[in-house]
Amino acid sequence: MLSQNIQTALKGNSVIRAMFNEGKEMAEKIGAENVYDFSLGNPATPAPASVNQAIKDAVDELDSMELHGYMANAGYPDVRAAVAENLNKRFGTDFDFHNIIMTVGAAGGLNIVLKAFLDPGDEVIAFAPYFGEYRGYAANFGGKIVEVAPNLENFQPDLVDFEKKITDKTKAVIINTPNNPTGVIYSDETMTKLGEILSKKEKEYNHEIYLISDEPYRELVYDGEPVRFLTKFYHNTIVGYSFSKSLSLPGERIGYVVVPNEVTDAEKVQTGIEIANRQLGFVNAPSLIQKAVAKCLDEQTDVAYYDKNRELLYGELTRMGFTCIKPQGAFYLWVKSPVEDEEQFVQAAKKYHILFVKGSAFACPGYVRIAYCTSYERIEKSLPAFEKLAVDMGVSR
Amino acid sequence: MLSQNIQTALKGNSVIRAMFNEGKEMAEKIGAENVYDFSLGNPATPAPASVNQAIKDAVDELDSMELHGYMANAGYPDVRAAVAENLNKRFGTDFDFHNIIMTVGAAGGLNIVLKAFLDPGDEVIAFAPYFGEYRGYAANFGGKIVEVAPNLENFQPDLVDFEKKITDKTKAVIINTPNNPTGVIYSDETMTKLGEILSKKEKEYNHEIYLISDEPYRELVYDGEPVRFLTKFYHNTIVGYSFSKSLSLPGERIGYVVVPNEVTDAEKVQTGIEIANRQLGFVNAPSLIQKAVAKCLDEQTDVAYYDKNRELLYGELTRMGFTCIKPQGAFYLWVKSPVEDEEQFVQAAKKYHILFVKGSAFACPGYVRIAYCTSYERIEKSLPAFEKLAVDMGVSR
Repeated sequence: MLSQNIQTALKGNSVIRAMFNEGKEMAEKIGAENVYDFSLGNPATPAPASVNQAIKDAVDELDSMELHGYMANAGYPDVRAAVAENLNKRFGTDFDFHNIIMTVGAAGGLNIVLKAFLDPGDEVIAFAPYFGEYRGYAANFGGKIVEVAPNLENFQPDLVDFEKKITDKTKAVIINTPNNPTGVIYSDETMTKLGEILSKKEKEYNHEIYLISDEPYRELVYDGEPVRFLTKFYHNTIVGYSFSKSLSLPGERIGYVVVPNEVTDAEKVQTGIEIANRQLGFVNAPSLIQKAVAKCLDEQTDVAYYDKNRELLYGELTRMGFTCIKPQGAFYLWVKSPVEDEEQFVQAAKKYHILFVKGSAFACPGYVRIAYCTSYERIEKSLPAFEKLAVDMGVSR
Repeated sequence: MLSQNIQTALKGNSVIRAMFNEGKEMAEKIGAENVYDFSLGNPATPAPASVNQAIKDAVDELDSMELHGYMANAGYPDVRAAVAENLNKRFGTDFDFHNIIMTVGAAGGLNIVLKAFLDPGDEVIAFAPYFGEYRGYAANFGGKIVEVAPNLENFQPDLVDFEKKITDKTKAVIINTPNNPTGVIYSDETMTKLGEILSKKEKEYNHEIYLISDEPYRELVYDGEPVRFLTKFYHNTIVGYSFSKSLSLPGERIGYVVVPNEVTDAEKVQTGIEIANRQLGFVNAPSLIQKAVAKCLDEQTDVAYYDKNRELLYGELTRMGFTCIKPQGAFYLWVKSPVEDEEQFVQAAKKYHILFVKGSAFACPGYVRIAYCTSYERIEKSLPAFEKLAVDMGVSR
């Protein structure tokens, strides 16, 4: 007798599981090396050597009670201070350790932030296409995702529709830039206008509306795009960050939340999020890995690795006749389905042993997401299969 | 504008924070070495050397993508299999990796189990005294803790009151043995009867009632008590375990949940809990530490260390005239307050720089919890202060 919420999720899950099993069966039948699986957003580069060294150093140098023991629910003060200083150095902010709460990944961070703010019936706005897990996160606290229609022109947020969707029940807005699944970076112009709309609506409804900036792909940007930090466009901005992509540590569940002093009642909000961290059962971010990432804050993710993949895949698929959005960041290629129902496109690709995800999973049908966080060689090897798919779908020019 | 739930918690939190600050001010004034802080359940023994070795070995031997990468939300299959085999060896069970879900500590484990089962309005029964965090955990999912009155005779569960408290809304029962805060171990007789009552009530109400066994102190037992594993008394039993105490790793947030095959629709329940792990934002238990604990499953916690403390503190406080329950397990001494309102007892103790927690925090007023997870020398040094407290409270014989 599972809860209603989990029974519903179980039904959705069996679809994903079916896909997963299909891929597995495919791999068993024809060999894993002949399946082109572009469905998962798992980093393809190893963690920098300095992370592993920092782990070993921490084990050798720190007292066991310090290394593996409880600390404040917000994390080690020295780790939080190191994160604050690093952000200040890079983005000209003025944080200290109070502004930083270490979290169990970005997913943990988003959940404790939503728990801190949401009452049942509250609305959270997300811009389609968006990471589908947000729906579950809001539902955890009785909140509801309200979708802003996608802007099919350039996949910047549709701010006209956005303004219409804000109601008295709007408690938060989630943005994710560089974006999963489109790879688009929200422009400074977009962000400025978005902040202005929120400020206006806060006054109109006379209560706070929080802008939650989900930034796991912050450093993964191409073509000389600056690395952006989004607290400057709107006062009630809360940032959620993860080291999953930047240090290739997705399994370790390590990230942080930033609550700037500009947030209304910032101290209360910081404490509220810290309490939520405890009450939801996270308690604190894993201790050893906190100590390790604090030593690696200047490490760079290997952007060139993904950039090569991006250029190859975007160039070739475009040449073949597919319509693609050129990614400015992250490691996903967003491709228009040659047929209206993109599920047919997904199914057709499977004939050539290519796996990718339908846009409906991101609240944007008619598109698919191809994750290019794999090796260059895998992408090269997959091109003849894509070529056949292009012919099959009738897009070849 | 925090959520109602967190605003309420914030009020409670400021009381705890006030206590914490009081202790800190006390330490600043008279020196930390002169404050006898018995308020926290933080392990006092370091992690076994083998854990740190296992961490370094994993870093040296495993590929970065395997060590720090995503795995299934339930954890690495090889780690889950190792846990299953270790339980089978020790308790004669017949688990395989499907029965084990690696979790972000026991707190994470309890939360995903409750999320999997609870709909708003559902009731969860807990036996007073119990760990106060359970209230927040149930509230996370709209559930409500229903308290069974304490059995002041021997602090075994009051099964007569228990049977009365079960209603059609009862979805789960949480037990914690060895118990925090009493140190009492629920006897086989208690557990057998408890299981019989649950089986009867399941039939009466025609739906599942889950027994959730929270077992962080499982191995911390004294006087030759056997280490018990509680899945044999009732078919719908789910175990939550943590390595926080047994391997002194509370900061690492690593534990597991066991769903035996005897649970109704076991496979669905396993998947439901796995989905809850993802949806609540835990995603998976931290990866590196999963690999490390899998190599240390036969490690023993240093029970003798705590046993010495137990004998000293229980013996001396009893001699002074305090009424104490002799702990059979865990590392807490449960002491009857010499005055009806135990808050007065807590305040009086502060005069002698002794800090402990009032029983009301565990839904059992009239008692206090003294955590003896500290060094033997600290306890020895505190005895003159306890002696003065005994005189002050008029308990000296």
